Amino acid sequence: MSFNTFGRVFRFTSWGESHGPALGAVVDGCPPGLALSEADIQPFLDKRRPGQSRFTTQRQEPDQVRILSGVFEGRTTGTPISLMIENVDQRSKDYSEVARAYRPGHADYAYDAKYGFRDYRGGGRSSARETAARVAAGAVARLAIPEVSILAWVSEIGGDAVDPARFDPREIDRNPFFCPDPQAAIRWEKLVDDARKSGSSLGAVIECECSGVPAGWGAPLYAKLDSELAAAMMSINAVKGIEIGDGFAAARLTGEQNADPMRPGNDGPTFLANHAGGIAGGISTGQPVRLRVAFKPTSSILTPVETIDRDGAAAEIRTKGRHDPCVGIRGVPVVEAMAALVLADQKLLHRAQCGS
Amino acid sequence: MSFNTFGRVFRFTSWGESHGPALGAVVDGCPPGLALSEADIQPFLDKRRPGQSRFTTQRQEPDQVRILSGVFEGRTTGTPISLMIENVDQRSKDYSEVARAYRPGHADYAYDAKYGFRDYRGGGRSSARETAARVAAGAVARLAIPEVSILAWVSEIGGDAVDPARFDPREIDRNPFFCPDPQAAIRWEKLVDDARKSGSSLGAVIECECSGVPAGWGAPLYAKLDSELAAAMMSINAVKGIEIGDGFAAARLTGEQNADPMRPGNDGPTFLANHAGGIAGGISTGQPVRLRVAFKPTSSILTPVETIDRDGAAAEIRTKGRHDPCVGIRGVPVVEAMAALVLADQKLLHRAQCGS
Amino acid sequence: MSFNTFGRVFRFTSWGESHGPALGAVVDGCPPGLALSEADIQPFLDKRRPGQSRFTTQRQEPDQVRILSGVFEGRTTGTPISLMIENVDQRSKDYSEVARAYRPGHADYAYDAKYGFRDYRGGGRSSARETAARVAAGAVARLAIPEVSILAWVSEIGGDAVDPARFDPREIDRNPFFCPDPQAAIRWEKLVDDARKSGSSLGAVIECECSGVPAGWGAPLYAKLDSELAAAMMSINAVKGIEIGDGFAAARLTGEQNADPMRPGNDGPTFLANHAGGIAGGISTGQPVRLRVAFKPTSSILTPVETIDRDGAAAEIRTKGRHDPCVGIRGVPVVEAMAALVLADQKLLHRAQCGS
Amino acid sequence: MSFNTFGRVFRFTSWGESHGPALGAVVDGCPPGLALSEADIQPFLDKRRPGQSRFTTQRQEPDQVRILSGVFEGRTTGTPISLMIENVDQRSKDYSEVARAYRPGHADYAYDAKYGFRDYRGGGRSSARETAARVAAGAVARLAIPEVSILAWVSEIGGDAVDPARFDPREIDRNPFFCPDPQAAIRWEKLVDDARKSGSSLGAVIECECSGVPAGWGAPLYAKLDSELAAAMMSINAVKGIEIGDGFAAARLTGEQNADPMRPGNDGPTFLANHAGGIAGGISTGQPVRLRVAFKPTSSILTPVETIDRDGAAAEIRTKGRHDPCVGIRGVPVVEAMAALVLADQKLLHRAQCGS
Repeated sequence: MSFNTFGRVFRFTSWGESHGPALGAVVDGCPPGLALSEADIQPFLDKRRPGQSRFTTQRQEPDQVRILSGVFEGRTTGTPISLMIENVDQRSKDYSEVARAYRPGHADYAYDAKYGFRDYRGGGRSSARETAARVAAGAVARLAIPEVSILAWVSEIGGDAVDPARFDPREIDRNPFFCPDPQAAIRWEKLVDDARKSGSSLGAVIECECSGVPAGWGAPLYAKLDSELAAAMMSINAVKGIEIGDGFAAARLTGEQNADPMRPGNDGPTFLANHAGGIAGGISTGQPVRLRVAFKPTSSILTPVETIDRDGAAAEIRTKGRHDPCVGIRGVPVVEAMAALVLADQKLLHRAQCGS
Repeated sequence: MSFNTFGRVFRFTSWGESHGPALGAVVDGCPPGLALSEADIQPFLDKRRPGQSRFTTQRQEPDQVRILSGVFEGRTTGTPISLMIENVDQRSKDYSEVARAYRPGHADYAYDAKYGFRDYRGGGRSSARETAARVAAGAVARLAIPEVSILAWVSEIGGDAVDPARFDPREIDRNPFFCPDPQAAIRWEKLVDDARKSGSSLGAVIECECSGVPAGWGAPLYAKLDSELAAAMMSINAVKGIEIGDGFAAARLTGEQNADPMRPGNDGPTFLANHAGGIAGGISTGQPVRLRVAFKPTSSILTPVETIDRDGAAAEIRTKGRHDPCVGIRGVPVVEAMAALVLADQKLLHRAQCGS
Repeated sequence: MSFNTFGRVFRFTSWGESHGPALGAVVDGCPPGLALSEADIQPFLDKRRPGQSRFTTQRQEPDQVRILSGVFEGRTTGTPISLMIENVDQRSKDYSEVARAYRPGHADYAYDAKYGFRDYRGGGRSSARETAARVAAGAVARLAIPEVSILAWVSEIGGDAVDPARFDPREIDRNPFFCPDPQAAIRWEKLVDDARKSGSSLGAVIECECSGVPAGWGAPLYAKLDSELAAAMMSINAVKGIEIGDGFAAARLTGEQNADPMRPGNDGPTFLANHAGGIAGGISTGQPVRLRVAFKPTSSILTPVETIDRDGAAAEIRTKGRHDPCVGIRGVPVVEAMAALVLADQKLLHRAQCGS
Repeated sequence: MSFNTFGRVFRFTSWGESHGPALGAVVDGCPPGLALSEADIQPFLDKRRPGQSRFTTQRQEPDQVRILSGVFEGRTTGTPISLMIENVDQRSKDYSEVARAYRPGHADYAYDAKYGFRDYRGGGRSSARETAARVAAGAVARLAIPEVSILAWVSEIGGDAVDPARFDPREIDRNPFFCPDPQAAIRWEKLVDDARKSGSSLGAVIECECSGVPAGWGAPLYAKLDSELAAAMMSINAVKGIEIGDGFAAARLTGEQNADPMRPGNDGPTFLANHAGGIAGGISTGQPVRLRVAFKPTSSILTPVETIDRDGAAAEIRTKGRHDPCVGIRGVPVVEAMAALVLADQKLLHRAQCGS
């Protein structure tokens, strides 16, 4: 990928800042003839949308997507699909403090160091608002991989994890935390509320499972399926870690414990375990692709933090304004979108070389 | 990246199989005028070389590198640098069993599923031998980033971690485990010996620190420095997880705990912590870039494992032959090489856009 | 490049169809800190705009560009610059005939063969309207190469060439043909008028000179400067040929005649000739970069042409509606834009590898 | 493409200099299961090989290719195919003059300007010897497009063209000029002999026809089939011009004259003409793909030419040693190879997006 384009054959290019007039993505290389309308994209944007509960930022954005090209008579034409989402609620506020001083944990200082200056309004390009473009592009990618179903959820907030024994996929959309464990959801309500009220923030872990991925997707050695997924997830704001299958836990297993034995099955092998997370040698094995993503706590907190200003002088900053007490929560549709984008690209790459 | 090429501006293309006549890499986009000879590359290959202790595979490979192009009168010319390493010790053995049955945890089944057949000798293209090409290319990359020093070590084997209080970088090359803690090295000796003798295997965690990276490297949003590092590390054989800075631990911290406050410094800010691992918004901050990589236990074990053969019939396989009881150990020079390759590419990308 | 993205470091992605709501481009990798506003782009779009004389299509398009991202306080931020141009005059007409039958010389049949169906309104994605996106992106590229000045003109229409002896750059913008020879401009007026009235069309040759290109730009061997220019020009609608320097004429010269001797100069060599068109070995020599581009006659003509319909049955088609009697004329700003885009990319690529 | 890699999905990376130990190419993305051995490549290298007649350079190179990876049991595995050709006849000569002074028309000055210094032995990387790597890679590409047959020939030398009425494909391999017109071949013998004896050189035009290309290959808008072919051909040493179909001649036709009318055919349309050269809108139409390539006269001539040396002082140079009096002649297998490489890549790209 390069700069603001992701993918090789199924590619998307994202653009836009937090407080610009709009943001969007151009999806290129999409197979022709797929039924596509705004209605196929909007539900995923709605799932990501802010302001839907007191547990996320109160910024109000309708996030209505418009398809500006690449679709004719309801079907993709094979030409670039331009998606645009207008920014509506750029509350006029005083940005002089953020313009002057660097918020620790944010990209403020790094952007200035790289580009010499920055669009400081709401984080500019490094704002999580850009993920709306990913989610929109991801919705298109899903249409290119109908054989695959992708499901992500929050498995941990502030160190409090769900109980695998109580995992129920139907619960995920029944609470504001995308939590598959109703009891954890109740605990998290207090946890996140306390963080919000005290002006603090929490980290989270998101898990994602992609089922229906046939064996054979992946482009070894430098576009391996797991390598691509790692790059995709690590490109999401606030992500600091990624695991495929058992991830770091696998480093504590023996070879026997970590093996995924195979037995004859009806269609390909039946695996007796999935420590590998559905990927071996960078290629899908036909098992569900499993991954985990770590989100750091939101860097914007009310507690004053020591910092410096643009002139290098000592300063102190407390980030006022609207923020997610746990930015990881809204990462769920983003993780799903990035997984869909990687899989669509890998499907097409595989078809290019291997013909099916 | 695509297939077997890694990088955008500073790129390398790797080729070769475990049991072919040779393997190698073509390094392209390298700045001209850098002093380069085989002697600059060989030490890194020697560090990775097998058969140096009883804790690694007994395959004997001199891994002598030859520079076939791109260097004139001892300096890089700016044209492609072709590096070749001949395979010497491809012990003639009977591969009929591996050819017939799939080794769980290996890429055998996935390669067959993708390509229809595979070079089964020693794992073919998916063999860890390919990492020799990475290490050679990485040695060239280091020359392009003299401002950076890269150091990796094994921080954990089979769940037994080093004691940070006893961390001593000088110890790393004094034991066969690249272990910075002499006491852990002693414990690991027994640990790995037991695994080797019992035909089992162990996983490991490698840590890497890159100091001297100036603030400003990184190509947001889809070639962020951390995203690139994640892709690079996840492309290494047996790697299942990657963390930047505190990684998954950050998901358990509050915003206050995770902040990296800044104070005025002589040259840029002085950071009071480095939870972020030297990267914010995908761009280096000038702090040391820190990452952790999880290696699964070697999949080749003597214990028989249930599997299927090429015809889908039930089978059982135990991997005889020469193997690393803990493949992660030899991952140290590979992790360093991949870090160097990412940083060299990002340095050039930054220079392209921002002019310095 | 791939699909709808052009360039490596300075890249742009174009989107949009002739009769969609809008078209545009996302410019990525642009250096930060460049002064940019719509006013820097509009003049180039105006130059290309249709309906300005009876010698071009009568479609009326204001072609007003909007900058949607990547600019803050009047300067480029280094993040993607999204440019949008709305389609206004999509005259509602009956497209049933074009939808049914294939227009020879147009992309109709090829698009159906590739994608299975097509957006037939005004040529859809293959319409020359897409060149507006190139011109807008090219205007941004010019800002990245202030050292270069690019000038293109029409040197031949329908086989009637300008007289080099009468070449006067100031004339180019004084007539509707971008013709540097006032007498040729008078002849062309009748020539193009006759073609227009008779429902026929004419081809043209455009010449372009880029001065100020320093020696050293170009990425041998597969992104050579001339190779890039050839790809860029051949990607323009209706282009069928490209020459660098003397082009095909050089194939009729001897080595002595074709030599470009050098003499000591104040700043680099003084060349006694420029048969090479300023490029040797794919790298700029510091001489003006000279190229010629051949445009075929507009395929849309009133004369009925034998063809087939979507069912493969015999048909006859005459293209009614608004068309350029000589599409090459409006190619001038497009050729300039593509040259600027190639040079900006090569400047950045050179800086990446060679550091200046 | 970038630097020394060509292609998107079917890619090759070339390396090596005129006087290095070897040169080669790594072919990546090749479909698996294709029968491949050195014997499939050697004939094409033999066709290009120097020293086969007095009309080409007397350098003696066996140009024996070795396959170092990517093939197992006689079939491509889908992993990178490394091809190596050793340089044998690097006649030890005195290069001090070339090292000191710049040969006009050669890349000498441009390479110094770009890289600061250069490998001056036999032109280093800019030597036509590199085309051996292209020819080897092209031979592999042909296997990926069995449906296509590619034929190139010399149609003009020093302005003396073949007579289309006497075109006979069987003649092409019966004379040292790849000339399809036996009478022209006789004339060229004297023409080239005279040039050789007088230490002069001649230019040439090569034509190429690719039949069997199905309708639908091509990746609009910036990887159009004609755009790709133009880039590929212009990247060949000494090429200064490229035409698709009628090329520049089309610029002198009217719309009626240039039309390619269609009639119902058994399998797709029957075209009544092929002015377009088999490409419309950047996509193949199913007609033969026709192109013409202009080669300048060899820049190395015995006549002394005015130039400057590395210090910028006036100098004079006459290129002694072994040279092709008409470098275009040996361009025939190179043009064929580049056409094959473009078509293989476009076939795979098409399959990726459109599924067949």
